[in-house]
Amino acid sequence: MIDRLTPAIEARGVGAMVVGSASRGTWVRGDRDLDLFLLFPPELDRDSLERDGLSIARAIAIEFGDGYREKYAEHPYINATVDGIDVDLVPCYCVESATGIQSAVDRTPFHTRYVADRIAGLVDDVLLLKQFAKAGGVYGSDQMTEGFAGYLCELLVLRYGSFEGVLEGASGWRPGTAIDLEGHAAKRFEEPLAVVDPVDPNRNVSASVSLSRMMAFVELARGYLAAPSTAFFELRLEPPIPADAFAAGLAARGTALYALRFPTPNLIEDVVVPQLRKSLEGLTQLLGRHGFTVNRADCEMGPDHCLLVFELLVDTLPAVARHQGPPVWNGENAAKFREKYAAPPGGGPFAGPFIEDGRYVVEVPRRYRTAAALLGSEEILGVSLGKNVRRALGKRELLIGVGCWSAEFAPFLGAFLDPASPLVRLERT
Amino acid sequence: MIDRLTPAIEARGVGAMVVGSASRGTWVRGDRDLDLFLLFPPELDRDSLERDGLSIARAIAIEFGDGYREKYAEHPYINATVDGIDVDLVPCYCVESATGIQSAVDRTPFHTRYVADRIAGLVDDVLLLKQFAKAGGVYGSDQMTEGFAGYLCELLVLRYGSFEGVLEGASGWRPGTAIDLEGHAAKRFEEPLAVVDPVDPNRNVSASVSLSRMMAFVELARGYLAAPSTAFFELRLEPPIPADAFAAGLAARGTALYALRFPTPNLIEDVVVPQLRKSLEGLTQLLGRHGFTVNRADCEMGPDHCLLVFELLVDTLPAVARHQGPPVWNGENAAKFREKYAAPPGGGPFAGPFIEDGRYVVEVPRRYRTAAALLGSEEILGVSLGKNVRRALGKRELLIGVGCWSAEFAPFLGAFLDPASPLVRLERT
Repeated sequence: MIDRLTPAIEARGVGAMVVGSASRGTWVRGDRDLDLFLLFPPELDRDSLERDGLSIARAIAIEFGDGYREKYAEHPYINATVDGIDVDLVPCYCVESATGIQSAVDRTPFHTRYVADRIAGLVDDVLLLKQFAKAGGVYGSDQMTEGFAGYLCELLVLRYGSFEGVLEGASGWRPGTAIDLEGHAAKRFEEPLAVVDPVDPNRNVSASVSLSRMMAFVELARGYLAAPSTAFFELRLEPPIPADAFAAGLAARGTALYALRFPTPNLIEDVVVPQLRKSLEGLTQLLGRHGFTVNRADCEMGPDHCLLVFELLVDTLPAVARHQGPPVWNGENAAKFREKYAAPPGGGPFAGPFIEDGRYVVEVPRRYRTAAALLGSEEILGVSLGKNVRRALGKRELLIGVGCWSAEFAPFLGAFLDPASPLVRLERT
Repeated sequence: MIDRLTPAIEARGVGAMVVGSASRGTWVRGDRDLDLFLLFPPELDRDSLERDGLSIARAIAIEFGDGYREKYAEHPYINATVDGIDVDLVPCYCVESATGIQSAVDRTPFHTRYVADRIAGLVDDVLLLKQFAKAGGVYGSDQMTEGFAGYLCELLVLRYGSFEGVLEGASGWRPGTAIDLEGHAAKRFEEPLAVVDPVDPNRNVSASVSLSRMMAFVELARGYLAAPSTAFFELRLEPPIPADAFAAGLAARGTALYALRFPTPNLIEDVVVPQLRKSLEGLTQLLGRHGFTVNRADCEMGPDHCLLVFELLVDTLPAVARHQGPPVWNGENAAKFREKYAAPPGGGPFAGPFIEDGRYVVEVPRRYRTAAALLGSEEILGVSLGKNVRRALGKRELLIGVGCWSAEFAPFLGAFLDPASPLVRLERT
């Protein structure tokens, strides 16, 4: 099929290049089907690139496929289905060296050439590594996974020489590990794992790998080397937890579960998930500030709804709360505070102002005595949420205890009640 | 009476000197009645000083008083009652300059001379200031009060020239305020208020003044200057709270009150109180570590019992608790931890090990689900308590809620439920 598309593109006066895993035989299920880049001269201005590029891509999609969908990542591109295969047609600049890169898509042809020139004889190792990472739940550089991209897997195989070599290397990783194939790193990277891009010394290919995903990979590598088995390559879906098991689990834990459910914004995962994470963090802090200690919290983006779940150690608090005032030596503010809060004698159960460590403290009625009152209030819109999540929260429901369960989120809630590292989970099965 | 004691001491070949507030007319109720120092040549060795000093002091006490009691502060001394007045007879070295001081008692005659030489015309101001501090609850350098000693009050009047001058000065104090009458400070003092001893540049006379007591004084000074009144000089006893009012107050607050009561060690306040404070701090931290958040805590040394009181926001917690393990990259420890805690599937409501921020975390059954279980356990003897309190805790009772009330501690518990700064309390009456 590439045999037909490539000449058709070149006939329109631009270069064509297959990039990504399909171009070098390292494709695994879950990778993008086929990326076909349209290469334009770098002298062309950006507007013309987008106009001409999309125009040619549309024409190709119509000629060979079933129509097209216009999409947008960092730059616009055309998506089509040709012979049952999902094809992205991406216009980019064909720059001569990596230093001429104008945007992220221009870098991709360099990645393709770098890997293609060196991967001979190692394709099976890359396939094994990608499947290993996928089964372990750490494959993919998307925001939800925070794991290992395909290109990163290829570079690791090049660095360590084989699949087992990668695992042996990884079993010694710790935060701050740096891998620099070309020995040309332009700076120190802050991320827990640094794999310097061979075609761009300023870029960390593993920038999106979180410390927890990195350590999940380390754990899996050690586990495999200690006891190799095909189980490490088998995809396992998280089983949904039945409603009654969910209720029994909650009761045995003795904790208080609260969830916010709202419609999923109509945007890609890489836009929504960071906002969910930010909201989760902000609301966890809000709960903590009001005295409701969060044991664990997590978020999930489903096709229809998003869910933010908070497991609390405590969901009811006493009437009395502390309010800290100014230091007594700050005369003007101290006097204002004292006058504002100095209650008449016998003025209820709330004491003060009194002096603690040189500052005024006063007791006030607690604003939210229950977590339900706090999570049901408009207060939650005051934390940093991200604009799309904030908008979606307009249609939120507050779920409590067993009410948090729904078929839609049953796999997620099962994993939430019973989290385990990849190796622990694998050893249990 | 001094007219008779002094010649009798001098007749035995040693010097005699009246020191303290009685010597300069600045005595107020609550000060020690009379301190009479026996001055020995500094060449005398310490054993002889104690032996000869106590021997002469005993003879004087027998000749003029009703017998004697041998006491011990930093050094041994003799206490007697002469003509109905409580007299301390204290042997010390008569050194020529303050640099020759061998112990704290040797310093006292220098304080007496320094103040006596300068206090003429300011005696009434000192008396006012001492009574003002006393009524405000900040007079006394003992461990419970952490307030202003008599000598400190005298120095403040010398520095600011009058009672009102002291209040005007104090209304501008902030942590780090330094007062140096002789301009000869030998170092920077760490305490919130530094009043350099005029006879010893290495000593901070206000070392025992806590930040909170300092700020209580600042608050009272501002309050008096804004609206002077005799109320500032009137002693008020903390009224005992009746049992039913105590129960009602607790219920309205909605908090959970716990107390440990045990026999008061047979030792002076300045030994016991620091141990009570240390125990209070240690037990507050212990409660916090186990998830029982302390709202307020306080201690009291009564004649028969000591009381440590903890007011908790929460006294019951869920079954599940977190236990943090090693970082995953620490291979050996990580493997041990994973093997130790990796439960079989369906192994109860406790999850993990899972990875959080690159470290293993596992959930375990909570050891103490109630504050009563924790405070009733031997765990409390594992915190830093001080040896006399630790021993006394052998005969402890754990009191809960309204059970914390007793007539013995009714004034203390009234103040505990309704704490207020001195000025707030005064304005309410």
